[in-house]
Amino acid sequence: METDLNSFVDFPAMVAAYRASCGTVHLVGAGPGDPELLTLRAARLLAQADVVVYDHLIGPGVLELVGADAERIYVGKERSHHSMPQDEINGLLVRLARAGRDVVRLKGGDPFVFGRGGEELQVLAAEGIPFEVVPGITAACGVASYAGIPLTHRDYAQSCTFVTGHLKDGSCDLDWPALARPRQTVVIYMGLSGLATICQRLVAHGLPADWPAAVIAQGTLQSQRAVCATLGTLADEVASAGLQSPCLTIVGEVVRLRDELGWFGERSEAVGVAA
Amino acid sequence: METDLNSFVDFPAMVAAYRASCGTVHLVGAGPGDPELLTLRAARLLAQADVVVYDHLIGPGVLELVGADAERIYVGKERSHHSMPQDEINGLLVRLARAGRDVVRLKGGDPFVFGRGGEELQVLAAEGIPFEVVPGITAACGVASYAGIPLTHRDYAQSCTFVTGHLKDGSCDLDWPALARPRQTVVIYMGLSGLATICQRLVAHGLPADWPAAVIAQGTLQSQRAVCATLGTLADEVASAGLQSPCLTIVGEVVRLRDELGWFGERSEAVGVAA
Repeated sequence: METDLNSFVDFPAMVAAYRASCGTVHLVGAGPGDPELLTLRAARLLAQADVVVYDHLIGPGVLELVGADAERIYVGKERSHHSMPQDEINGLLVRLARAGRDVVRLKGGDPFVFGRGGEELQVLAAEGIPFEVVPGITAACGVASYAGIPLTHRDYAQSCTFVTGHLKDGSCDLDWPALARPRQTVVIYMGLSGLATICQRLVAHGLPADWPAAVIAQGTLQSQRAVCATLGTLADEVASAGLQSPCLTIVGEVVRLRDELGWFGERSEAVGVAA
Repeated sequence: METDLNSFVDFPAMVAAYRASCGTVHLVGAGPGDPELLTLRAARLLAQADVVVYDHLIGPGVLELVGADAERIYVGKERSHHSMPQDEINGLLVRLARAGRDVVRLKGGDPFVFGRGGEELQVLAAEGIPFEVVPGITAACGVASYAGIPLTHRDYAQSCTFVTGHLKDGSCDLDWPALARPRQTVVIYMGLSGLATICQRLVAHGLPADWPAAVIAQGTLQSQRAVCATLGTLADEVASAGLQSPCLTIVGEVVRLRDELGWFGERSEAVGVAA
């Protein structure tokens, strides 16, 4: 009679026991900055977590929601010299979960929109570690709301597109013909370094130089500042205004609506103007 | 000496008094369905509002967060015979705010993404009524997270585009050349009626018939169901599966990641399969 490994090893029970011994990794979106924009689930998980692993662009008030006894591990700013490489972050999450700890992996915005959340989860999945995903308000939605710029509007834009302005190698190689089109809103998640290039390329690919475009800095925070201009003038006006990162760029006719719909921080000022 | 109206009427004080007599309209995103995905601010406003004006696609658990004393006004399902026309909704919001009531205008998802939120605010702005916008988790982000499908991923998609599948006149007139492109994720906010047409057009404009695509029904709710297929097979598979609205369609190579990253509802099932 042949030896059958399955007669010695209860494999389903082994898998279940391994998974039960692991902590869960909760991949959580922290939203665009204002801690009031965290989801109920995110706030609950932050209060309960054993350890919170967080990186760049987490709003200053968000970490106040972490429980007093929780360990906080900062894994650094993207594109800075002080950041932890991605494979070290992945390894850290695996080690913490294997040690049975309940881990919140906290990312700015939404973890599935330019957050590399998928890449981190692939590592956890391969290791058999339980996880969940808690979506966050992505920067485009949060910042547009606080800036009074609807991302879609039946008169101006039937679609919206989110792109990131910088690639791994530092270049800016976007699908310009797809972006330089009317009746859509384009939101660019980026710093300011590529702004002039992006505006020039959009005009070179067919958008008018007087096409509306805005940069919003520190969106949703009390320090929010916005510059509304055109593709032809935006880079210069942003430079004059001295905006600081993080910034989001919105391109499209919906930008015009901010004059009517701006409310956050500028509401009292607008009343002053009307008077 | 000429009569100067300004010497009789203190206009700034008049504007301030008018605005102070009005209630505020809070345009609030309810997120994709799971009430745990409301923001902290949305939950607080729902608990405090004098009146909540809500329409289609509000998750069943969300209304439980409305205060017991608040009036609830249902303004109907889009595209149904029982809905209130948009200008009546606008008029209702103006009347409620002028009566000094604190109004939450609650919309599914995010109010600035296919929500006509901008159109409602334009009416309020013209009437001088104070308002604010509270972004919500838009369906694309919420549903993708719970389906285990990252909207962007460095290996598959550098951008994502949100479109709506039906227009005012019932036709489906999308910018096909911009949508039928590799290295992006397209999310279609729609019912199922136009699905076969959309898949055919995307293939006719250059995407391969075996390009991954998924429909997720009742996303983020316990009743969530997903069908992952290809542009060539999706419409038939969705019909066989008998999915019910609301639905969201995701097109792009990121759909493949669901096999690895699906976790909501199917996690225990997946362990069963592995065993």
